[in-house]
Amino acid sequence: MSTLSDQLLKMERHNSIFESAVRALPLPVCAAFGDAVRPQPVAFAASGRVLGTRDGEQVAASFPHSVQASGNAVLAAAGVNRAAPRGKRVAVLFSGGPAAGGHNVVCGLKRVLGPDNTLFGVRPGPKGLIKGQLFEITEADIDRVINTGGFDFLGTDRTKIKTDAQFAYVKETCLKNSIDAIVVIGGDDSNTNAAVLAEFLFKGVKADGSGVQVIGVPKTIDGDLQIGDLLPISFGFDTATKIYGEMVGNILQDTRSSLKYWHFIKLMGRSASHVTMEVALQTKPAITLVSEEIAEKKQSLAAIVEEIAQAVAVRVGKGINHGVVLIPEGVIEFIPEMNALIAELNDVLAHHAAEFAAAADKAAFVAGRLTRGNARLLASLPAYVVRMLLADRDSHGNLQVSLIPTEQLLVDMVKARLQEIDADIPFAAHCHFLGYEGRCGAPTLFDAAYTYNLGLTAGSLILDGRTGYMATVTDLDRGGEPRAIPLTGLLNIERRHGKDEFVIEKALVKMDSPAMQYLLSRRAAWAAEDLFCSPGPRQLWGPAARQMPISVALNSGAQSLEFRIG
Amino acid sequence: MSTLSDQLLKMERHNSIFESAVRALPLPVCAAFGDAVRPQPVAFAASGRVLGTRDGEQVAASFPHSVQASGNAVLAAAGVNRAAPRGKRVAVLFSGGPAAGGHNVVCGLKRVLGPDNTLFGVRPGPKGLIKGQLFEITEADIDRVINTGGFDFLGTDRTKIKTDAQFAYVKETCLKNSIDAIVVIGGDDSNTNAAVLAEFLFKGVKADGSGVQVIGVPKTIDGDLQIGDLLPISFGFDTATKIYGEMVGNILQDTRSSLKYWHFIKLMGRSASHVTMEVALQTKPAITLVSEEIAEKKQSLAAIVEEIAQAVAVRVGKGINHGVVLIPEGVIEFIPEMNALIAELNDVLAHHAAEFAAAADKAAFVAGRLTRGNARLLASLPAYVVRMLLADRDSHGNLQVSLIPTEQLLVDMVKARLQEIDADIPFAAHCHFLGYEGRCGAPTLFDAAYTYNLGLTAGSLILDGRTGYMATVTDLDRGGEPRAIPLTGLLNIERRHGKDEFVIEKALVKMDSPAMQYLLSRRAAWAAEDLFCSPGPRQLWGPAARQMPISVALNSGAQSLEFRIG
Repeated sequence: MSTLSDQLLKMERHNSIFESAVRALPLPVCAAFGDAVRPQPVAFAASGRVLGTRDGEQVAASFPHSVQASGNAVLAAAGVNRAAPRGKRVAVLFSGGPAAGGHNVVCGLKRVLGPDNTLFGVRPGPKGLIKGQLFEITEADIDRVINTGGFDFLGTDRTKIKTDAQFAYVKETCLKNSIDAIVVIGGDDSNTNAAVLAEFLFKGVKADGSGVQVIGVPKTIDGDLQIGDLLPISFGFDTATKIYGEMVGNILQDTRSSLKYWHFIKLMGRSASHVTMEVALQTKPAITLVSEEIAEKKQSLAAIVEEIAQAVAVRVGKGINHGVVLIPEGVIEFIPEMNALIAELNDVLAHHAAEFAAAADKAAFVAGRLTRGNARLLASLPAYVVRMLLADRDSHGNLQVSLIPTEQLLVDMVKARLQEIDADIPFAAHCHFLGYEGRCGAPTLFDAAYTYNLGLTAGSLILDGRTGYMATVTDLDRGGEPRAIPLTGLLNIERRHGKDEFVIEKALVKMDSPAMQYLLSRRAAWAAEDLFCSPGPRQLWGPAARQMPISVALNSGAQSLEFRIG
Repeated sequence: MSTLSDQLLKMERHNSIFESAVRALPLPVCAAFGDAVRPQPVAFAASGRVLGTRDGEQVAASFPHSVQASGNAVLAAAGVNRAAPRGKRVAVLFSGGPAAGGHNVVCGLKRVLGPDNTLFGVRPGPKGLIKGQLFEITEADIDRVINTGGFDFLGTDRTKIKTDAQFAYVKETCLKNSIDAIVVIGGDDSNTNAAVLAEFLFKGVKADGSGVQVIGVPKTIDGDLQIGDLLPISFGFDTATKIYGEMVGNILQDTRSSLKYWHFIKLMGRSASHVTMEVALQTKPAITLVSEEIAEKKQSLAAIVEEIAQAVAVRVGKGINHGVVLIPEGVIEFIPEMNALIAELNDVLAHHAAEFAAAADKAAFVAGRLTRGNARLLASLPAYVVRMLLADRDSHGNLQVSLIPTEQLLVDMVKARLQEIDADIPFAAHCHFLGYEGRCGAPTLFDAAYTYNLGLTAGSLILDGRTGYMATVTDLDRGGEPRAIPLTGLLNIERRHGKDEFVIEKALVKMDSPAMQYLLSRRAAWAAEDLFCSPGPRQLWGPAARQMPISVALNSGAQSLEFRIG
């Protein structure tokens, strides 16, 4: 036993057999970077393409340096950068929820900066930048974290840099550590924050009057950071949806084996339904709710329940007493009547905070202050949902939607409705919420390669003297092209918490997108009989390893699911 | 897009890229079966080893034919069976909860029976046998289901064949379809049922006075069907624990990335803690509860809560505000005071069923009929736990333990205790129950190869004229040896529902087993700091594909985690 227990000891601290093997996996690079083993930085040049939003004028007024410098033009690779500077000191940080591939962004950055420049890790997230918590990242660190999941190498947090004091601290951190550039790896909010930071640090930071460059890298498992062909998908989405896809496929297989259960599965992804749609395309379950479709059709909760109950009844009529229902995390807020109720609740709670806190019967207190329709809707909901609807708001005064057990609510309502239709219809259901399991898994080959090349792109942008861009890699089914998106070209103005704010709009599922149209074309068939498939565990080796997300392939007009970088 | 949507259409009904690829994966066979592509049936001979339990005499009296024929001797392979009969008609069925690899048992059976014999599938489970629902399994079926997860090819159910009428129906099914042998793929109860069936069908079934052979195959993800070196593990355990292991590894990685959450994860596995122990050995989390240890130490619920709360506080003292707690599904019943409470509740509910049903305040009704200590314990539990403790019993009058949200109970009690210790200790926790996700995943290479060889063994036993045995493959790290365990050699008498029943005892975790000892030797270190590793998604190709369960490797004295069949 001693040999084996020695081996087990060596597996502690990220040295499972899988983790050790995956570190040795070679990563392909876009042709623009030259050799895969020793990738070179590329130089960039403005492509003809210029971005802009309806709020372009106000953006230009608020981000004068950035807009003047970039002209909001998309950058394309223009050959290897033979004049890359030396001695650059670059800081990198994670911002927001973790997503698979983050470590490889850091690895790509380190490799392209090479031994002539210095890379610092900021720990954890924007908070670490404010506090000045930096450490030098070594080659040994890179060899250790490459191809592993999670953000644990640097940690992450959700601090938004917005007060004058916070900006001053960031400037101090840069000065104290002679930082020349910052790479922010994050979602829509974090990239908006990167744009603000880029403008703030554009010049006059250092003694010689120069500034600090800021580059964003697009991360989010939610898939709601998409910019057409320029950013077909953020990193982490593929890994998360393949993890959820495997679990849903396993459960589908279980329904047809056990022959007696329905499973209602809620999937992470905040507002947009991209995750749910991708998992549905992978697995083909009986029922898939899409929040954006519910909003467009203005469906009521009762109508959704009726649709599910009818589908259950039809299947039972064919002897199929089982099935799977996929539910997007944010669906509640897309049901118009629920959205109206939640909005009025937010108002009532904000305006009567003290009285509400003191009220003995909170539901009654609130009901008395709601309009009649909303009071009736609230009264129709089970106690555990009312409790969550009245629970503490987040720091922005918003309901924490993920805490509402939508999957249990739907099970209970469908069960009650089936009792009305026909008390003999068998209906036994289990609930699941798949979320945290998907954020920190080992990256798929797609995410591993994509993020490594995002890191190479971000590093190249820094060595090319750019600031205020988001790194991207396009043409993921045709070799991959490093590009840069001017962050100011993405900004819109949105009213949040009573004041105008610049934001990168979240990309919702478009009803007319090829992926949604494909789902709509097959959904009825999947409800009528078991046509599901099981995507299986994601493979890093062998014939099943090179798949990109189905929705991304459909929306980008790819001819197959195979991605191709390099 | 048309090319891609055509490809997507073809992926429906179990044709994902993974499923298509995995069907072509070659499977190794034990040397005893000769060639891997055309495996030959083996003949068997009694080894010197004879099994028996304390109730051997009563078993011999109740199973006279079986015991006389087998002498309770373990069988070992004795060369290729060159005299294998032709024209045998064999029925195979799944019994109980699904487990990965079941399809490969059927594939192995079909391959070893070859074209000269006929294999029938029974659909679904024992119920299908009673109803006579059989269909012939073809080579095309085998090519379709090989290496895929779940039991959906045949379906399964939990019917226990026990009444005279049921036995008569089974006999009728055999006669009507001229069945010569039945293979029951199931857990401890199903194999007990197989022993009873083997005795009942031993002779005098057919016109010529001959009987119907019955062979069991050891399945269960719970891992509680183990017989020393003769059956180091049942099939399905490896796949389930690797699925849970990946999820737990992902969540561990998330805790160290997000730096602010505890995750309390309950793991399927009914009574025994094998699943939880294996997942702990794979991932090395901060805290692992083992039911058998709690029972042995006679720990109270309060003591368990105190232990977790202290561990949380110690980590917070080091700046580690996160961690993972693994909880075996059945832990509640192993806490002596809870076990006593549940037993008394079962009694009260059984004896006052009508009054209880009519009672308005059920908790008060019950509390008035409990002994004082139990009433006090019940009163100390949160309402949602009391509700589950008073919920409907299963058909045996037992509490449905899996419905009790032990993970939430522990979170709430730990939170309350931490408030007492120091209100400033940060503690935010999420709950998970990993269960159904793990039963029907695609089998690991270990389970795929193991089950295929179990099928070859079961078929060989039939062609060798044997009945009343469980097929097994031993020496899984040294090439694999097909063997047969006489079912009557495993039977004990247990008092269930007021009467004596023959049972195969569930194997619980032994405190002095090498696996448990290893866990105990490392657990304090894993609590003190993050030493976890992430086992990653199970691989079917590449350098990380050939791992056996860690607990099995430790308990069987293997020198490495690599299994070796063939």
